[in-house]
Amino acid sequence: MGQSMCGHILAAGYSVSVYNRTASKADGLCKKGASFLESPKAVAEQSDVVFTIVGYPSDVEEVILGEKGIMKGLQPGGVVVDMTTSDPALAQRIFAVAKEKGCHAVDAPVSGGDIGAKAGKLAIFAGGEEQVVRSLTPLFSCMGSVTYMGSSGLGQSTKMGNQIIIATTMLGLVEGMLFACKAGLDVNVYLEAVAGGLAGSKSLQLYASRLLKRDLQPGFYVNHFVKDLGIATEECRRMGLSLPGLALAQQLYVSLKAYGEGDLGTQALVLALERLNNMELPTIENK
Amino acid sequence: MGQSMCGHILAAGYSVSVYNRTASKADGLCKKGASFLESPKAVAEQSDVVFTIVGYPSDVEEVILGEKGIMKGLQPGGVVVDMTTSDPALAQRIFAVAKEKGCHAVDAPVSGGDIGAKAGKLAIFAGGEEQVVRSLTPLFSCMGSVTYMGSSGLGQSTKMGNQIIIATTMLGLVEGMLFACKAGLDVNVYLEAVAGGLAGSKSLQLYASRLLKRDLQPGFYVNHFVKDLGIATEECRRMGLSLPGLALAQQLYVSLKAYGEGDLGTQALVLALERLNNMELPTIENK
Repeated sequence: MGQSMCGHILAAGYSVSVYNRTASKADGLCKKGASFLESPKAVAEQSDVVFTIVGYPSDVEEVILGEKGIMKGLQPGGVVVDMTTSDPALAQRIFAVAKEKGCHAVDAPVSGGDIGAKAGKLAIFAGGEEQVVRSLTPLFSCMGSVTYMGSSGLGQSTKMGNQIIIATTMLGLVEGMLFACKAGLDVNVYLEAVAGGLAGSKSLQLYASRLLKRDLQPGFYVNHFVKDLGIATEECRRMGLSLPGLALAQQLYVSLKAYGEGDLGTQALVLALERLNNMELPTIENK
Repeated sequence: MGQSMCGHILAAGYSVSVYNRTASKADGLCKKGASFLESPKAVAEQSDVVFTIVGYPSDVEEVILGEKGIMKGLQPGGVVVDMTTSDPALAQRIFAVAKEKGCHAVDAPVSGGDIGAKAGKLAIFAGGEEQVVRSLTPLFSCMGSVTYMGSSGLGQSTKMGNQIIIATTMLGLVEGMLFACKAGLDVNVYLEAVAGGLAGSKSLQLYASRLLKRDLQPGFYVNHFVKDLGIATEECRRMGLSLPGLALAQQLYVSLKAYGEGDLGTQALVLALERLNNMELPTIENK
């Protein structure tokens, strides 16, 4: 996703330097005019604004707060924008470290996946100082549309709320398909019949046909979704909030990892429900 | 809902007789030209096609198979169409009784609620003999659009699958709102930010603003939803199907009845989650 997002910023005419642990992943961006530097620190030394989008909170910590991290190179007045889906508390910690150095930090996770990143149509949820977020609008607009959510960490909290909705919606979608199959319905006809009514959703639009033709390839990785739901669950624990639907969905997604299915897409939740029921949905080839 | 649906059939020029346990409820239809008769049996004696939409499976049983029920009056070749959300096994039993008398039975539950019924835009899921369902298309078209789902009972099974999706989607919607509130987000801004992305759904469109302004009045009654989810759960038991998301949503909806909240709308699920968490979402008056 980072490659697509950075590509849009390059295309808008900004001067860009980049870093990736696997240097070859930046080849495409370098051909378009980006310069590859040897560390996040080096990138920060040359930049007014530094964007990060990595895997896990531990990666965010290393790339921003680590020995060769962004905060070691960023000049006073500089801004670090973490677009990883990560921990709200970590976002607040980064914000505090940045403030101490006379810098700014924004948490700005995104929704829309690979497809949204390529099309420059991500939904961006930004937390931090309002005027800093506003000043970044021209950059965010290259990647999608931004909503200012409030103080540091609230971009991440919005993303967590987003993932809670998506997880339970996927659970209902898959359970409805299993019910329809077991009841003797043509699952394809069932989905078409209910899609137009109150059961309709973006998830149904996006995933129903993939599920019908048994395409479990990732738009969004199970591994990353397990991370997101884990953060959401941990936030619930921290805030003293009981969300049984989230807990159930999170546990079922974790079970996919037990079967080595972390590199499939989130629609692979169907596998957990199929195993629970010793059954398999039919594959409809012509979807 | 029956009044709106029958009104559309009257408006299309069909000759209609009606029955309701509370005769006054039919006053509006009688003013429009329907004749009120003293029993379902009497209605059936005068009709080629008889529609029923009542409360619970026990009501369906009484009105169709009872002493003064439709099957006692229906002539050979006649059709009974039950549009109640009811038990698939009961639909099959009615089908068998009808067949034995040289009659036809169709199960045709609907999705779209009060609003869909008034607008003549219901989604109708029909089970039974295909040619019988096809012959009813002109009548169904007065009320909405019909999909033929397969043999007797499969209309009801489709509706169950529909309710499974809706129940889990509502759970995710409400849990996301509680998470956002507890995290310190403006719940209104949160919902607007996520609505455009993959978290978007018809339920979010229809219920988010009602929830924000604390409007828990029924589009669709909790009591009826508890019935529907109870039937779905019982069908799962019968078929040997384990659907943990359905089970969780069903139990939470049942808890609303423990608080005497069966006459509120399905969005009242928020009350169960609020009680679980000893908190209350803010009311936003200007939604």
